[in-house]
Amino acid sequence: MKTKLIYSGGMDSTVLLYHLIKRGHDVSCVSFRYGQRHSKELQCAAAICANLGIDHEILTLPPLRGSALVGVGEIPHGHYAEESMKMTVVPNRNMIFIAHAVSLAITDGCSNVAYGAHHGDHAIYPDCRHDFVEAMSGAIIYCDWHQVTLLAPFLMLDKTGIAKVGRELSVPFDKTWTCYEGGETPCGKCGSCTERNEAINNSK
Amino acid sequence: MKTKLIYSGGMDSTVLLYHLIKRGHDVSCVSFRYGQRHSKELQCAAAICANLGIDHEILTLPPLRGSALVGVGEIPHGHYAEESMKMTVVPNRNMIFIAHAVSLAITDGCSNVAYGAHHGDHAIYPDCRHDFVEAMSGAIIYCDWHQVTLLAPFLMLDKTGIAKVGRELSVPFDKTWTCYEGGETPCGKCGSCTERNEAINNSK
Repeated sequence: MKTKLIYSGGMDSTVLLYHLIKRGHDVSCVSFRYGQRHSKELQCAAAICANLGIDHEILTLPPLRGSALVGVGEIPHGHYAEESMKMTVVPNRNMIFIAHAVSLAITDGCSNVAYGAHHGDHAIYPDCRHDFVEAMSGAIIYCDWHQVTLLAPFLMLDKTGIAKVGRELSVPFDKTWTCYEGGETPCGKCGSCTERNEAINNSK
Repeated sequence: MKTKLIYSGGMDSTVLLYHLIKRGHDVSCVSFRYGQRHSKELQCAAAICANLGIDHEILTLPPLRGSALVGVGEIPHGHYAEESMKMTVVPNRNMIFIAHAVSLAITDGCSNVAYGAHHGDHAIYPDCRHDFVEAMSGAIIYCDWHQVTLLAPFLMLDKTGIAKVGRELSVPFDKTWTCYEGGETPCGKCGSCTERNEAINNSK
């Protein structure tokens, strides 16, 4: 079963990549250049796919707007639950990624598009909610004669849950990139680092 | 009421532009470069917006695939109802356009995104169906905290009906571009020319 994975090179989608391979999916990956502050995550995505022998392409979108992740203001520190973290919402990013991935899936004859939305993201990121995934699943049924199914198997897990799955699958967490900043090493202070480090610690 | 219009420069979306202006919408337009064979329609879109004093931007997407409109095979001639016309379906094009337009609408504080889907397209283009518009409307509710409504007011009209609306609004049909080919003048033979010419004749 051919599956197109929306792949950021971060922890969540890397665990999802390993999960899909383990479940027997014939996976190919697509990443997006959308005006993010750095390309560290794309480099990690390419390296992990090359290591696994997985097809990977990077599509360049018109730069998205209206978020600290694409250069509007400073990256906030702390937990996702904090109000300031809403500055990191990129308006409609997931619908854009899903729309492009579904187009590729139709062209490549894939049965599924998968993405790594999870429960812990819900409070801040509206396009990681169950209602959004359900509504998009409906739209994908009607968008083409070729049928594609949207998979978001981590939707009911939190980040600690994903880290636990990753440990079981021997995912090389140190090869993934989650930090919103693009330094030599992760900053350890942004929301993404904070949540990731706690999840990995809690999963032990 | 601010409305973002997905604008191709063709007959249908130009009539929609005039219709929205007439109804008092504060319209801004977005067009897409997506690997189409020619840029005639984008030039027309820019010229019409400039003439009306309407904000217009062109976003460059990664080239879409899998259709005669983006260089796969020859452009078929005849009516949309013919099987060969399915070669002109660009996989998931409307979801991609809508997703990007919604992102801009959120950033720009627009209440609506509008596009020119109509009844005559249904048989060939899956992403012009009522079911698709309804499902996408649902997804847009959940994609962000800012609420955007998807408008497709011509959904129950055929192309002749749109041409009639256009005549009432004095739309300059000769300034729009519908032809799938990019010659000096419209070819008059492709599906898009055939349907357009019949619609304009029937609307008299």
